[in-house]
Formats: sequence, structure tokens, C-alpha cells
Amino acid sequence: MFEKILENVQKNPPLVHSITNYVTVNDCANIILACGGSPIMADDLSEVAEITTICNSLVINIGTLNERTIQSMIIAGKRANALNHPVILDPVGAGASTLRTGTVEKLLKEVKFAVIRGNISEIKTVYQGSGTTQGVDADVNDAVTEKNIHEVIAFAKALSAQTGAVIAITGATDIVANSEGAYILKNGHPLMSKITGTGCMLTTVIGSYCGANADAIFEATAAAVSVMGLCGELAHAKLENVNGGISTYRTFLIDCMSQMNANILNGGLKIERA
Amino acid sequence: MFEKILENVQKNPPLVHSITNYVTVNDCANIILACGGSPIMADDLSEVAEITTICNSLVINIGTLNERTIQSMIIAGKRANALNHPVILDPVGAGASTLRTGTVEKLLKEVKFAVIRGNISEIKTVYQGSGTTQGVDADVNDAVTEKNIHEVIAFAKALSAQTGAVIAITGATDIVANSEGAYILKNGHPLMSKITGTGCMLTTVIGSYCGANADAIFEATAAAVSVMGLCGELAHAKLENVNGGISTYRTFLIDCMSQMNANILNGGLKIERA
Amino acid sequence: MFEKILENVQKNPPLVHSITNYVTVNDCANIILACGGSPIMADDLSEVAEITTICNSLVINIGTLNERTIQSMIIAGKRANALNHPVILDPVGAGASTLRTGTVEKLLKEVKFAVIRGNISEIKTVYQGSGTTQGVDADVNDAVTEKNIHEVIAFAKALSAQTGAVIAITGATDIVANSEGAYILKNGHPLMSKITGTGCMLTTVIGSYCGANADAIFEATAAAVSVMGLCGELAHAKLENVNGGISTYRTFLIDCMSQMNANILNGGLKIERA
Repeated sequence: MFEKILENVQKNPPLVHSITNYVTVNDCANIILACGGSPIMADDLSEVAEITTICNSLVINIGTLNERTIQSMIIAGKRANALNHPVILDPVGAGASTLRTGTVEKLLKEVKFAVIRGNISEIKTVYQGSGTTQGVDADVNDAVTEKNIHEVIAFAKALSAQTGAVIAITGATDIVANSEGAYILKNGHPLMSKITGTGCMLTTVIGSYCGANADAIFEATAAAVSVMGLCGELAHAKLENVNGGISTYRTFLIDCMSQMNANILNGGLKIERA
Repeated sequence: MFEKILENVQKNPPLVHSITNYVTVNDCANIILACGGSPIMADDLSEVAEITTICNSLVINIGTLNERTIQSMIIAGKRANALNHPVILDPVGAGASTLRTGTVEKLLKEVKFAVIRGNISEIKTVYQGSGTTQGVDADVNDAVTEKNIHEVIAFAKALSAQTGAVIAITGATDIVANSEGAYILKNGHPLMSKITGTGCMLTTVIGSYCGANADAIFEATAAAVSVMGLCGELAHAKLENVNGGISTYRTFLIDCMSQMNANILNGGLKIERA
Repeated sequence: MFEKILENVQKNPPLVHSITNYVTVNDCANIILACGGSPIMADDLSEVAEITTICNSLVINIGTLNERTIQSMIIAGKRANALNHPVILDPVGAGASTLRTGTVEKLLKEVKFAVIRGNISEIKTVYQGSGTTQGVDADVNDAVTEKNIHEVIAFAKALSAQTGAVIAITGATDIVANSEGAYILKNGHPLMSKITGTGCMLTTVIGSYCGANADAIFEATAAAVSVMGLCGELAHAKLENVNGGISTYRTFLIDCMSQMNANILNGGLKIERA
């Protein structure tokens, strides 16, 4: 499964334009390289349209947004739309401030997204226009459980129908949905939430996979989420051998991404259609 | 010693708002997670008050300040004061430029700090309103020695009396003082000065510990300084085994923070009342 | 060879001011420390001249430039020129947008550079005022080969004559030229292009070496390029032992820089005069 998705990334390495936060930007650039893409970060109003033009996809991450970069996100998003480049949104901390929630609303009005990826609290905020996000982590009351998973899937499908975007909700269990169907993905490891940027990094992997698979956004997104989760597991296994902590875990996570291939993926994939 | 401080961080993981520099921000976010907190970085004027409101403490670091973020620091600081959240100041490079020295002066006028942490040159600048800081490192002429340590403690106590903040002066020997007393802390390793951001990281650990121990700022600060120093020692011991350089050292330092507990701390603590 | 260059860095650790991008800034700060310098990053218009004044060299990197920082680059560059501090330019992505190409042109008019370092596409853009840079990587059509190397050297010499700067063109084979001569440097490893920031990091190592060897810019630049390439090789050798991926490679690269000395360098140097 997903062999073709990974093959396309290797055969046509995508150039990925990110307008992103300064907290995790270095990890994002390195994981784009690790997964087979080539990163370019640029956020000045006077160059973002040109930069997006030479790229294959655009990732918009609102992690440390400010008035200057919000404008750049809209300009770049519109250009990417005009060129039919997939645009991926990471609504970091949506629900935690009026600026973030309002910016997401504005972006959704001005830009057509191919994929929106966030934790459950962020995605609920995108859906409802308000939320209870605690900082940049999901509200514990929002957790996806065996009990409510079908409800969450229904809401993801509805949001997909409303926005036209594939919706990726990530957490202990991940959901990737379009308006018609969904995947439940169970790869991953709890340690992933103990380092900063696993969400941001995943979003750029989605951006890379979609950049090389613009005609298969749903599959490319599911592949990226699966690969990231599996890297989380493999990195944990390596960590046990060296008695490492969270910083070594971060290193191993990106290492595993750079060593990923279809064989490894198929050996570890935990995915089902819902 | 400090068992209660560490226990409170584990029991009530603090959400820490940082307005900080873009050089060491990723390490700061990861070490907040490593020590048991949850980081959020946000610096836009239109959201900092809201973000601070949902957090337990605020860290202000002037490492790469600019006109935009200075305003954000003041707005966030005032809000945190209004909510009685501890606010921690890291006056990076105070004394190295008029902007930095002047910003510290302005911040001290507008915001009440719970803790101020810097190297001896930075803290002298805070005290005197001018200094001889060489870049972001302490001036060698300022070094804390056996000979002048009681003079430095007296000055730290005076600055604490003047500002109401606990003063943490870090270097080969660390001093944590309030207006009435002081700790001399001798954990640490010279390699800590060979990586960027150990000071910034320590300040965010102080922010995390104070966020979970708002009624014990003096003890929480001393605990954070001790823990960071001990991590520096433990990371060095691990480094010897693998013949690593400074980048591996940085990784091990954060690893050790994520593996710290009260037993390890008590086994290595080098602290005395002065 | 280059013993004196390295010795001067150790004897008089240079303070290096960088106005740089937020993607690779942390790696740049750490590699400045690793190679024996001391980093300070500052980009606000109101402090850059003062900060440059207390430093030994200035590195200008346009990786994530914006209107605010372009002004700071010019102000800092002029001050560094007035003080005879070496100024190093890294024209990241020149050719990829009008803003970048135009900024390089403006910088070259306003500031006298001691060294300009980039990949072949970026340097061609500097020379021609336009280019075909693909994002931040060199255009494959621009590759330096056995066949065209003497043509590239001739063009590097011409650019040096035109700008007065030592020109460093880095890639699979590196060239360092002034108006009269050139080095061909063959240290390095292909994995270096699989992590973000090796170019940016090299530029700050050049900044450090030039800061401590202001009267030997040509030799200092060649030494820095050689050292970085050799670190790339040594890091790869270490990587094989641990079956690591690109993030471990990044760690080892900076580690090797912190463990470098004249003996190691002379044991691995692959350099010839052209």
C-alpha cells in the first residue's frame, strides 16, 4: 500500500514552500529533506508569490503568526490555488487566541486548502469557529476514543465536505477523511507528544507527499500520516537501545524518516478504512 | 530537597508562554517539555495577552528583540502581573547595545518580575543601567570567584530588594538570591558554555518550575538552576562514553532533563545557603 | 597547511555578528561555537551598528529576509566596512525571487564584502544579476564538472575582480577564488546536501575564521571550506557505525567541527591550486 505515493516522491522530489513558525522551522526543513522533498521557507509579502510559483506545494502553519506573515499566507495561498498547487494548512493553536481562530477563518475564506491537519481541538475550532484549545496541545476533553471515534469521523467528513479539503486529525489515533470516506490510522507512539513540532513536521511531510502526488491527495495524506506514526514507533525502538531521552528521540524520528521505504512501511502499517 | 517542587511540576504540568529569540527557541520549547511543562511561543501584539491568560507563567527573553516584540513583552507582562502569573526575565546581551539595556530598563519599569536570570555581566547591567557585556557572554573581568562571591551575593540581594524579583546569576558558580538570603549552587560543567542557549533554556526551566510553584519562587528557581547544572554534568558523563562533540552534548543535556527525578537530583545536588 | 589560520581562531576567539535566517540560525550559532568563535545574532535596525562594533566580523545571510532586516543588513554592513571588519555574504536563494536577486544587488552596491559564498546558481546570479536558482538548491544545469571547472574558476576570478571579495562556490567540488588565483577543494560528502543549513553553517565558519584572520581572508576562507568538507566526511564515517539517518548526521557534523584541529585537517585535506 502507498508504494506509488512514495515512489513519486523519490522520482519527482517536490519543492515545498513553507510559511511557518520559527519554533519548529528547522525540524520542518530537515524532515522535508528526510522524506524526499526540498524545502524553501520564505514569508516576505514581496516574494511569497514568486517563491510559491517555482514550488510544487505550499504549507501554511500559523504557529507564530503575525500581521506581516498573515498577509503573506493569503497572497501565497491565492497564487498556489491559481497554479493548482496543493496548499496544506496547519492551524496551530486555533482556539487558543482570537488572532489564531480569526486567521484560520480568514484563510479558509481566501484560500482553498487541499489538506487541513491538526489535533482534535484545533480541527474542532476550524469546524465551529471557536474552541477550547489549551495552548498548542489538544484539550483532554476532546480526546478521540473508541467510543466517540465514529462521531469524530462523521465530523471530519462534514468538514471535508464543507471545505473541500482532506482532513487529518492526529493524536493517539489518527483519522484522515474526505467527504466520502476515512482511514483510521493507529501507528504512532506517545513520546511523539513529548517533543515540540511532531505536528508541524507531519504537516510538511504531507506537503511533500502531496506536492509529488497532486492527483492523489487523500492517499498521499494517509501515507504521510502513516509514515510519520511508524517513524515514531521505530524511533522509540531505537531509543530503548541507547537509554535516550526526548532529544535523542527527536533525532531518531527524523533519522527514521530519512531511512523509510515502502518495505518498511508495509511491514509496520496499521491502517483501516472506516 | 526540592522534591515538592518537582512533584508539583509533574502533578500540575505548567503551560509556559515564552516571548523569546529565534536562535534558541526550539531548544527552549523542547526543554520545557523535557522538564514537565508545555510550551507556547507567541509574540504578536494582538494575541499575547490572551495567550498569557491561559498559561501559568511567562518568560521574556530579549535575545533577538525588535520594536514589534518589545511592545508584546510589555503587554504580556502587564497581563501576567494582573493575573499573578510569575514572569521571568532573561536579559540576554543587556549591556551589549543601547536597545537591549534600554529595553531592560523599560521592562523593569512596566512589569514586575518574579525572577531575573542572567550571567554576571547582564545582571550587573540590570543593576547599574549600563554594562560591559561582550556580546551574549559574560565579560571575563566580571567572573564570580571565591574572592568576590560574597560581594556578588550582596549585590544580588540588593537587586532583589530593589526589584522584588529573585535574582539568578549563572556561570561557573551560580547564585540564587532574594532580598534576605541566597543559595550558592555548584552544579554544572564548562561545556555548557560551548553550546548556544543553555542560559535561555535554563530560564524556561525556571519558568516551568515557577509556573507550577507560584507560591515558592525562590525555591523553584534554585531547584531549576540545580537541575540544569546537574543535567550539564550527567550529559558530560554520557558524552565521554561516545566520544561526542558539542552537538551530541546539547542532545544529551535535554535528554538528561527529560530523565530527571528527585532521586537523581538528590544524588548530585551541590548547594549551600550563603 | 592552514595551521596558523586555526591557531589564530583558538588564540583570539572571534565574536561573530550574524544577520541571518530563522531556519538554520541555531545550527549557525552552534557551529560558530564549535569552530572556536562566539556568536551573536541581532537584526533590529536600532542595534545592529552597535552590535557589529563590538564584533570581529559580520555575516549577512538572506535566507528569510524581509523589508525590516534588509535595512539592518545595510546599516550593519556599512558600519563593519567603516571598522574594517570582514563582511561575509551568503546570497541564499538569489535568483529564486526578484526580492532576493534585487537585495543582493543592493547589498553589493552599499557594502564591500570580504567573502561571498554560495552554490553555483546563487553565485552566477550574483555575477549576472539574474539566475535560474531552484529554491535554495543549485540548478542541476549549473553543476560544476571536470569539463567546465576552468570556466567556473575564470568566472569566479572575474567576480572577485569586480567585487573585491573572495568568492567561494560550494558543491560536490568547491572553488575558492580571488582575482588572481584559486583553490579547488575536494573534501565533502553528498549527505551534506541532505540536511538543511550546511551552506549557511559554512558561511558562519568562514565568518569566524575571517574574524580571527582579517589579514588573510583568502586563506581563511579556503581553510573554512576545507574544514567543513572534511567534517562532512568524518561525520559520514561515524554515521556508518551507528546506522544513523540525516538528523544524526547533522549532529555528527557539528560534533566533528568541535573536535577539529590542525592535525586532523592535514590528515584529510584535499586541496590544489588552480
